[in-house]
Amino acid sequence: MSKADIGLIGLGVMGANLALNIAEKGFRVAVYNRTTARTRGFVEEAGALAGNIVACETLEALADAIAHPRPIILMVQAGKAVDEQIEALKPLLGAEDIIIDAGNANFRDTRRRMAALEESGPHFIGMGVSGGEEGARHGPSIMVGGKEVAYRRIEPILQAIAARYEGEPCQAWLGPDGAGHFVKTIHNGIEYADMQMIAEIYGILRDGHGLSAHEIAPIFAEWNGGRLNSYLVEITAAVLSADDPETGKPMVDVILDRAGQKGTGRWSAIEAQTLGVPATAIEAAVAARSLSAMKAEREAAERRFGVPAPAAGPAGKEALAILEQALLAGKIVAYAQGFSVMAAASREFGWNLPLGTVARIWRAGCIIRSQFLGEIAAAFDEAPQMENLLSTPAFAPVIETAHPHLRRVVARSAEGGLPVPALSAALAHFDTFRRARGTANLIQAQRDFFGAHGFERVDREGSHHGAWGQAG
Amino acid sequence: MSKADIGLIGLGVMGANLALNIAEKGFRVAVYNRTTARTRGFVEEAGALAGNIVACETLEALADAIAHPRPIILMVQAGKAVDEQIEALKPLLGAEDIIIDAGNANFRDTRRRMAALEESGPHFIGMGVSGGEEGARHGPSIMVGGKEVAYRRIEPILQAIAARYEGEPCQAWLGPDGAGHFVKTIHNGIEYADMQMIAEIYGILRDGHGLSAHEIAPIFAEWNGGRLNSYLVEITAAVLSADDPETGKPMVDVILDRAGQKGTGRWSAIEAQTLGVPATAIEAAVAARSLSAMKAEREAAERRFGVPAPAAGPAGKEALAILEQALLAGKIVAYAQGFSVMAAASREFGWNLPLGTVARIWRAGCIIRSQFLGEIAAAFDEAPQMENLLSTPAFAPVIETAHPHLRRVVARSAEGGLPVPALSAALAHFDTFRRARGTANLIQAQRDFFGAHGFERVDREGSHHGAWGQAG
Repeated sequence: MSKADIGLIGLGVMGANLALNIAEKGFRVAVYNRTTARTRGFVEEAGALAGNIVACETLEALADAIAHPRPIILMVQAGKAVDEQIEALKPLLGAEDIIIDAGNANFRDTRRRMAALEESGPHFIGMGVSGGEEGARHGPSIMVGGKEVAYRRIEPILQAIAARYEGEPCQAWLGPDGAGHFVKTIHNGIEYADMQMIAEIYGILRDGHGLSAHEIAPIFAEWNGGRLNSYLVEITAAVLSADDPETGKPMVDVILDRAGQKGTGRWSAIEAQTLGVPATAIEAAVAARSLSAMKAEREAAERRFGVPAPAAGPAGKEALAILEQALLAGKIVAYAQGFSVMAAASREFGWNLPLGTVARIWRAGCIIRSQFLGEIAAAFDEAPQMENLLSTPAFAPVIETAHPHLRRVVARSAEGGLPVPALSAALAHFDTFRRARGTANLIQAQRDFFGAHGFERVDREGSHHGAWGQAG
Repeated sequence: MSKADIGLIGLGVMGANLALNIAEKGFRVAVYNRTTARTRGFVEEAGALAGNIVACETLEALADAIAHPRPIILMVQAGKAVDEQIEALKPLLGAEDIIIDAGNANFRDTRRRMAALEESGPHFIGMGVSGGEEGARHGPSIMVGGKEVAYRRIEPILQAIAARYEGEPCQAWLGPDGAGHFVKTIHNGIEYADMQMIAEIYGILRDGHGLSAHEIAPIFAEWNGGRLNSYLVEITAAVLSADDPETGKPMVDVILDRAGQKGTGRWSAIEAQTLGVPATAIEAAVAARSLSAMKAEREAAERRFGVPAPAAGPAGKEALAILEQALLAGKIVAYAQGFSVMAAASREFGWNLPLGTVARIWRAGCIIRSQFLGEIAAAFDEAPQMENLLSTPAFAPVIETAHPHLRRVVARSAEGGLPVPALSAALAHFDTFRRARGTANLIQAQRDFFGAHGFERVDREGSHHGAWGQAG
């Protein structure tokens, strides 16, 4: 029997779907799972694809089954399980073989693992895979980091299994090192911000205009036909129109308002802070999820402080157009922050991240997929030296048109008591960013006053101190 | 000659001032500096206090000079220098001696160092010292973490050198482990938020109302006589009234609007994220400093997008009263966030942090000192089980009165293009917090739709999935 093209360890939902995807594209994939029963069951359920699957009951058998140099995908739980698999595989593999961690690893773990394998081998690849179960089965977005030579070995397989946007596969080698997992983390951070802004607009429509879920659904459906066209807006319309079979109520109305989080949003915020890059829209979204979890405290707070009743009146055509533009403006700022974090990481770690390519491979397969990302790709292609989306010639006119609407929505929400943490963070970011003369001169004066930290002057170089003795 | 009560290594500005403070309070302090010339110079300049100072030219001499068990304060640069000093001291000290790191350490380093010395000794204390040069010399706020027995040895000295608020020394043992340095970090995070909110109000007065620095100074001076009374508001009035001797212009107008930061604000944000506690006002302040540093990009952005001219008209009595209340509301939320981060860290690390005491030792000596902190101390004393300032009986009525003004200021600033990142983050936090039914139900619906993450229902227990097949 001919050797397999690739191996895969971990037949959970994601791993199984990825293996089926690979087999379906005509590659032979050798699979292994810690529990042999799962491996056997997987092959039995694989139907016509079973011919491309080599079931292995030991790691040795797996290593034997793959053509050299042997690439092996790990799709096991992020964390300790990855380290254990690497240890178990090391004695079985040579320096030219390739271990590919396709889980949701923290890029710092990926860097550590890569460094540890640097001398002895095998190669190590950190590969972000986005798109959930569906994506894994039928086409995810794939973000690869590690040695380029190792990537080239698996490139044809990734080309075949990735999502496609107008025929282009949504996969790329983004840089050495932890670049792939870092980009995946920021993808998720942006996803948090995007979802939060959608939820804020939903809140304005529900709690400000008093609309029902079924009345809000078509609004998002219509927006999905415009500039906001995206998977997240599309599924917002879908979930808002779904009913609960048990109660007959709109599904969203029986769902508790307590959001979960798995850590990647938080990692985005931590890395942005570590790099010193503002990511306030992402931070606001992470904070909103944390606050959502404090249900009992929020209930007590509403009893104490009350909330205003819906007072915005009907949501007419103009009001909706303003909300649409506000969401667009907020979204642009959130994406701009995310891309700036990646630009900074690229500089910090010497990755030379291709921002246009990042946007391009997010156009399909992943959760934040949209044509908007095509525009971002074009904006960075047109101005590759730019690290800030807001400054690109392509996006400046869009934000110019949209920000007055964002400002109106933030102002009205503030007056009406409707929480818009991510949208207002986006507006504050824009308003801080577009002001040549900010207010940090006062902060510098204070710091020099109490800590003799010194300051720069507007009229000449150097570090100076104030003549505070003359003051008050 | 009698033995010294304590040793001190590192005669930079902070260390020298702290040593003089100790000597002045009647304790004998043995001092050592890497360069002997500095040690000699220090004693020469010490004047009448020289009698209480024992100059040591070697670490051995320093160790010999101190009464057992020997406490030695390190006031060297945070980071590697601390580790080096510990290594150098270890062979000279016994298990009962005490090394006290009084620098601005990251509490994670303090934890690591403490753990490393756990078995062999000496004791290790992480001690946050706030108040700058002036504080070190005449009374800082001192936050101690480590073994209580080690703290008791130095308590009389700390009692004597600390700042006093109505006679009470602003120093305390806050808990084991890195508790002291953690609390110092959050102090600085709150300081960032407080300064940023003041700067935002300054921006509204300058760029919205068109006031000069000299017109704004008395406004802050007046507020300093009210509820906002604090060192930071006091010095804001002072720096705004100072003139540049060279140009004759207001000092703040010749200072470049590019703020520095030394990392503790960032650490606060990172630890808040790591703990999953919202600290968006602090994050907004850190982000504002980062944006301030991007001067060239901001200049380009203003050329591209423009900024509105001052349009708010004169700042009348009513407008000023609104701004004052808005600043108070924003400040309460920022402090509430900071205290919640400490509460979460206390739980995470088992520190049992006394939040009332933290507030109490911040009433004098440190940069955020104010009578407001006295109110916070009282609020936590009254409701010690509360971890959230907004929920305390003492502060709920204050925020209830103040938040409508904050909302007005955020709304007007949004309309007027005036950046208020920290104030709007505070408002968004309050509006999210006080709403029993938030919008995270939509986020949970989306997450279940694309990732089968499951959700809780409002009407019964357990994890459920949506009937999304019926949708769209």
